[in-house]
Amino acid sequence: MFSDGEFGICRNIRRESKRYINLNPIQRGGIIPKETIPILNEWLDGYSICDFCEGRLEDIKSPPIEKFVHDILPKFLDIDIVRLTNGAREAKFAVMHALCKSNDRILIDQNAHYSTFISAERLNLEIHEVPNSGYPEFKINPEDYAEKIEEVNPRLVLLTYPDGNYGNLPDARRVGKICSEYGIPLILNCAYSVGRMPISARKLNADFIIGSGHKSMASSGPIGILGIKGEWEDEILRKSKRYKNKEIEFLGCGPRGLPTVSLMASFPYVAKRVERWDKEVEKARYFIKKIEEIDGIRQLGEKPKNHDLIFIESSRFYEISKRHKKGRFFLYHELKKRGIIGIKPGLTKNFKMSTYQLKKNELNMVIDAFSEIANL
Amino acid sequence: MFSDGEFGICRNIRRESKRYINLNPIQRGGIIPKETIPILNEWLDGYSICDFCEGRLEDIKSPPIEKFVHDILPKFLDIDIVRLTNGAREAKFAVMHALCKSNDRILIDQNAHYSTFISAERLNLEIHEVPNSGYPEFKINPEDYAEKIEEVNPRLVLLTYPDGNYGNLPDARRVGKICSEYGIPLILNCAYSVGRMPISARKLNADFIIGSGHKSMASSGPIGILGIKGEWEDEILRKSKRYKNKEIEFLGCGPRGLPTVSLMASFPYVAKRVERWDKEVEKARYFIKKIEEIDGIRQLGEKPKNHDLIFIESSRFYEISKRHKKGRFFLYHELKKRGIIGIKPGLTKNFKMSTYQLKKNELNMVIDAFSEIANL
Repeated sequence: MFSDGEFGICRNIRRESKRYINLNPIQRGGIIPKETIPILNEWLDGYSICDFCEGRLEDIKSPPIEKFVHDILPKFLDIDIVRLTNGAREAKFAVMHALCKSNDRILIDQNAHYSTFISAERLNLEIHEVPNSGYPEFKINPEDYAEKIEEVNPRLVLLTYPDGNYGNLPDARRVGKICSEYGIPLILNCAYSVGRMPISARKLNADFIIGSGHKSMASSGPIGILGIKGEWEDEILRKSKRYKNKEIEFLGCGPRGLPTVSLMASFPYVAKRVERWDKEVEKARYFIKKIEEIDGIRQLGEKPKNHDLIFIESSRFYEISKRHKKGRFFLYHELKKRGIIGIKPGLTKNFKMSTYQLKKNELNMVIDAFSEIANL
Repeated sequence: MFSDGEFGICRNIRRESKRYINLNPIQRGGIIPKETIPILNEWLDGYSICDFCEGRLEDIKSPPIEKFVHDILPKFLDIDIVRLTNGAREAKFAVMHALCKSNDRILIDQNAHYSTFISAERLNLEIHEVPNSGYPEFKINPEDYAEKIEEVNPRLVLLTYPDGNYGNLPDARRVGKICSEYGIPLILNCAYSVGRMPISARKLNADFIIGSGHKSMASSGPIGILGIKGEWEDEILRKSKRYKNKEIEFLGCGPRGLPTVSLMASFPYVAKRVERWDKEVEKARYFIKKIEEIDGIRQLGEKPKNHDLIFIESSRFYEISKRHKKGRFFLYHELKKRGIIGIKPGLTKNFKMSTYQLKKNELNMVIDAFSEIANL
């Protein structure tokens, strides 16, 4: 039925990018540490974690998912309850689905990830936005949440912390305070913070906190975590009438397989790296300082920078692209020649990147590459 | 913040079951073939497959997910369109969500998987059931679908092919014919057939066909596939108004990571094993013949058996459990002593198991174990 060529398509797949420094923000926090790899190799099979399941993923004792989900992760997020999901977007959808009905209003920051908007669109929610401050910082002002809540009276509020474009870290604590004053639940989308920096749901006044294993917790995708403040337990963890131990919003069980093992096995590594977050912020600031020395390159988004996700505006690279034989793909090619990938092919004027967990020599390679290319 | 003990919980995880013959039906079709393992090791990192993404998982060219999803899988299922999902249940939910609104009626076989019922419950659908024939065969009569459709006028129909309890293979083609005569779309839940046996959506008259990578396609969970008949494209693949290339029902992208690679890399192996399905049916029948020679053990579900998933009724084991010092856990312990696991601990009278892909010596070990234990 299938030719050798077709089988070859399936099997001859190498991850070419492994040899490069990858600046793509979605990749830098998901690299599996070497101590996790042998563990994963024991758990590759289909439903590997379900050998001793008694009915629910979060209650599995061998491997000790139960302790991980019910003790360790809630302590990590400083929240009452945690559930595993198929990703951050699936967690957002689950909360929206549990709390909202069609045509309900939801209030979202303008910097939110596309999957936040799509989750709301899937549920036919009426989306209202808290606008950012526009060029050049694109900041979210927490006080605007109060104003918009008055205006819109939303069922649910979401803030992206940080956003995935500019890496801005808005004052989530203040937004949480405002939401709790109005008695409206707040989702913090922490896909780019949980696993990178210390996060306490309690301190930030969040009702729900969402993390991404593949984005920021050194895990094999797809996997997310959803932290839930105790008062929402009944609504979010509603059980099936027919299958008494199954939680409806998670269709019984979430990530049943390898990604769950990867999240657990990498957790000690992740918990430790979070404590060195200040070094990552320093690194990002150092990088920005160096590349802003190049004429025609600047960082957009809040200043000073508080996160590794960096948005760059580069009139210099744009100018070069107009005369370079590779046109707007020149930057991609020039970086690749220098062992660097992860900036979207075709972009020169505006692009995002991350310095997260780059080693010192790698960071210097990137800075040197930017300088050289700027002088082409 | 965390103790060494807590970190140990995360990291000291071994898959003890690897050393045993595992009879659990959810495990036998998900074992990763050895040629897939080195490929997976290149793609363990978070969003590994997204290095060269231009906006949609199914359109990624490196690795060639595009060819796999748009050419190879539709040919495999004999259907127009395929999408990857986070699992079979998530695929069922997506179709139900796209086609139904709250309080719509859905018609489901009584043998359906719990996650089918929960998907419908999550959407507040009114569930109607086509009953099975009861003890001892628990068969679904396709003609009952016509009767129930007349009675209920459902928005959507689902048939489980085969079901996950008895491994019965109902006449799906006839159900498909009936549904198409009434103009009502049919979902075939093939979580236990796609990847084990040849399946043609066209021949079975299915509008949607759903497979499970971790259950039956030698893939790392969680991953599912959803086959879609062309006429449903607009409804199922509805695009976001704001993000024109993102499909709402899949929240933009489905299984963004390792499980997708595992599905691809194991596909040649899976496509070949499907062609040897008759040998698997023979093996199951042989097994049943041998164990039914033991007094007080019989197979329930349709006869002759057409699938490897076997439901056993054993008054013999039940009798032994009443006098054994381990009580109802005796069967689990006696099998484990003999290198066999996968029958739910505590069950003796009714349990399910699978002979899928057992080697001849393994099959004989299981038969011998049953005989020995029956004589305790």
